Amino acid sequence: MTFQKILVANRGEIALRIMRTIREMGILSVAVYSEADRKSPHVFYADQSVCIGPSPAKESYLDADRIIQAALDLGVDAIHPGYGFLSENADFAQKVEAAGMTFIGPSVHSIQTMGDKIKAKQAVAQYGIPMVPGTNHPIVDTEEASTVANQIGYPVLIKASAGGGGKGMRVVEQADQLASQMNRATSEALSAFGNGSVFIEKYIGSPKHIEIQVLADNHDNYLYLFERECSIQRRHQKVIEEAPSPVVSPEMRKEMGEAAIKVAKACNYVGAGTVEFIVDEHLDFFFLEMNTRLQVEHPVTEMITGIDLVEAQIKVAQGEILNINQEELRIHGHTLEVRVYAEDPANGFLPDIGTLMTYKRPQGPGIRVDDGFEEGMSIPIFYDPMIAKLIVHAADRPAAIQKMKRAIEEYNISGIATTLEFARFVLEHEEFINGNFDTKFVENHFSPSSLIRPLSAEEKEVLAILAVSLQQVKPSAKSNAPNQSEQSKWKSRRFNA
Amino acid sequence: MTFQKILVANRGEIALRIMRTIREMGILSVAVYSEADRKSPHVFYADQSVCIGPSPAKESYLDADRIIQAALDLGVDAIHPGYGFLSENADFAQKVEAAGMTFIGPSVHSIQTMGDKIKAKQAVAQYGIPMVPGTNHPIVDTEEASTVANQIGYPVLIKASAGGGGKGMRVVEQADQLASQMNRATSEALSAFGNGSVFIEKYIGSPKHIEIQVLADNHDNYLYLFERECSIQRRHQKVIEEAPSPVVSPEMRKEMGEAAIKVAKACNYVGAGTVEFIVDEHLDFFFLEMNTRLQVEHPVTEMITGIDLVEAQIKVAQGEILNINQEELRIHGHTLEVRVYAEDPANGFLPDIGTLMTYKRPQGPGIRVDDGFEEGMSIPIFYDPMIAKLIVHAADRPAAIQKMKRAIEEYNISGIATTLEFARFVLEHEEFINGNFDTKFVENHFSPSSLIRPLSAEEKEVLAILAVSLQQVKPSAKSNAPNQSEQSKWKSRRFNA
Repeated sequence: MTFQKILVANRGEIALRIMRTIREMGILSVAVYSEADRKSPHVFYADQSVCIGPSPAKESYLDADRIIQAALDLGVDAIHPGYGFLSENADFAQKVEAAGMTFIGPSVHSIQTMGDKIKAKQAVAQYGIPMVPGTNHPIVDTEEASTVANQIGYPVLIKASAGGGGKGMRVVEQADQLASQMNRATSEALSAFGNGSVFIEKYIGSPKHIEIQVLADNHDNYLYLFERECSIQRRHQKVIEEAPSPVVSPEMRKEMGEAAIKVAKACNYVGAGTVEFIVDEHLDFFFLEMNTRLQVEHPVTEMITGIDLVEAQIKVAQGEILNINQEELRIHGHTLEVRVYAEDPANGFLPDIGTLMTYKRPQGPGIRVDDGFEEGMSIPIFYDPMIAKLIVHAADRPAAIQKMKRAIEEYNISGIATTLEFARFVLEHEEFINGNFDTKFVENHFSPSSLIRPLSAEEKEVLAILAVSLQQVKPSAKSNAPNQSEQSKWKSRRFNA
Repeated sequence: MTFQKILVANRGEIALRIMRTIREMGILSVAVYSEADRKSPHVFYADQSVCIGPSPAKESYLDADRIIQAALDLGVDAIHPGYGFLSENADFAQKVEAAGMTFIGPSVHSIQTMGDKIKAKQAVAQYGIPMVPGTNHPIVDTEEASTVANQIGYPVLIKASAGGGGKGMRVVEQADQLASQMNRATSEALSAFGNGSVFIEKYIGSPKHIEIQVLADNHDNYLYLFERECSIQRRHQKVIEEAPSPVVSPEMRKEMGEAAIKVAKACNYVGAGTVEFIVDEHLDFFFLEMNTRLQVEHPVTEMITGIDLVEAQIKVAQGEILNINQEELRIHGHTLEVRVYAEDPANGFLPDIGTLMTYKRPQGPGIRVDDGFEEGMSIPIFYDPMIAKLIVHAADRPAAIQKMKRAIEEYNISGIATTLEFARFVLEHEEFINGNFDTKFVENHFSPSSLIRPLSAEEKEVLAILAVSLQQVKPSAKSNAPNQSEQSKWKSRRFNA
């Protein structure tokens, strides 16, 4: 089977990135867009474009029936869901297939299995995948919780079985706190998710988030494309990713890779998927979940392997056989990715809105920018505030860090606050440079004042000259060395101009 | 030795490209610029910038003393010459060293040896490097020419010993034409170069131009970084380059690489250099010359090896040891480079001048654009008319060709004629796709009409509707299917808009 036309059921950078590969494969592309995205680059890039509704995602990018109807109207062979929106929605996948088109992703069964935390744990249990010690069934009873906690050993973590985003989560340091924390967690979970059941598991104090990219075809071939280190997070969301991980040895890589393939086999996975692991301070790893779609940070893997993951997804969906063996796969150099969000790091990473008054991308060897905006465009408030992914590839980790710092300096964005300066802070932090960091990095090391940099000798000199001149002009003014607030102003002129 | 500050004695894309690496290495950069380049990106990118004179290169970029003085004034440690201008000027290298700074390039001896065709041939003669059969000393006498030609066997090529650019070149098919062609060649050479002496060599009817990148340090380590296929040329200048070459086998690659290293050793070469070979229809290769500088097309090698050649040059100049072995070097994937010139392919590739009214670069995985312009800038008439180098990297040659076609389609340049559409013609030509081409490709296959593409079904439909509408509005107009001239207009609207 060869696709003639593929609809991309997504927007922004990922729609554009997918359509570029579609075009290189000689396939026609169809964009869908909401009213807010009428002038987006992905709309102009596609061979055909269809407006699918009002700006709120629920009325457009999440409207499965409308998207499928647009695809049928235009004679589309396959639908690529990107990430987010309908990408892990089993109903959507089922409807696409029922309408006679191909869903570019795994089977409905795989999505359903991995989309449910309990089902997922049960599915992989028989394969001997390491899992965080704890219950693999929901608990509501405090006595049962106590028995489990004693078996595991304290500290333990209580988390809502239906939850996410940190709601209903409680750390219990010792046995006498269990009953009260259990009560709080279950009532929080009940009010947040309408379901008061919780899991109890071993609490990992210094967790790293490391994931494995897998790729499988319909002919029983499974590959692991190595790891991505994703521990730098803010608000439980990744913001800097890299590969290879500075803490993963070749042996650990092989073990994690083989474990990830077992997870993929446990749900008969086909296509590109990601198996997430939590890694503790002893570098023991535990299965967390599997994402049954292309990951935001997939370019990291593309850069170190030379494999176009979107092309691989499309070929696998066409029924082709993966034409590479695990033994042939190699890691080339080192890659870092910084997610550039329209957020204000100095203000709790709250989303910022506005217009990209200036928007000049960095260039040069080893730089890739995946984005979906042009200078002059506004960032719509309806969707994820990610402006771009800035990706660098270099010979080794120190060179990649240097290149990323150079790229950040060259990236010229004004009109909107971004996470670029925050990323620079991370790249210059000793713990990041040493590779010794966990998911608590931001919480432990970052505060808005982290972004205030000391003045350079040159800046001090300029200010001193200015101060002297002012004294000469107005003898009454007793201006001297700049105070903290002047430093901040100086800084914002430098980086927002 | 560690450099603190490097002056880049060049302009445009290569100055910018070199300064990006300098910045990544934590070194300060100094730009020099002529009056015409006052607003060029390389001027703004540098940490310090100095105007070195009026627009004509002779009064600025070729003014060695002025550049050296600027470097001394700013406390520069080393000068990177880029390519062109003073990059292969032994006097300049000598003056830089005499002024107490480092010339980032080979020794004066290496430049002098390889800059003189006769010295170069003599230097490599003892190493058994294959050379095109012929004289390795200049000839003026017809009788001597005849003896040599009989030994070599016809056809032979007569070429001016002092020459270049095809002047004073004559192909002699058989013995009875030798005397008359010899007379013409020597008198042409005399009038063009003030020197009537010539070389006689075997004429290669279907020559490919394939070159080897070498890298050497001051500690007797020599590497070859594989080949670049550069046979697609117009006006004897490269316009599309790629690596690996579609005709070079692993054995041939090793042989050529080892020959190139012998050439480098013959002149005690240090730094990055390129050994050019001519390859005949039997895939026998012959030494042509060595370029003792960074090559325009160096990114091709960077993409397939992952080595930053500018970084390597700087490290070698600092006295560092090359920290990689020949055995560890691998070719990753396939790279193509298209030089985007401000030239009109429909008009004999004559340089076009004007303003970049629109200038939008292509993006996405595996795309690198090295340029030195921004939208709204004018292309100065004083220098080489290259606007940019468009470089793609993909898993294999077919994928790289597809990616380059996609990138060309995405590149949006208006206000000036460019070689982009010409490059597309080459990429779609059967002989290029088969890898079966030589330096006569353009001469044999390209004419201005090659750029006229047949109308697509959609375009024909639009024109037919238009024709019908016109007939309805003005019954007297007998417009019908579009003629040739309308097709051209349609095309230029499509691609210059």
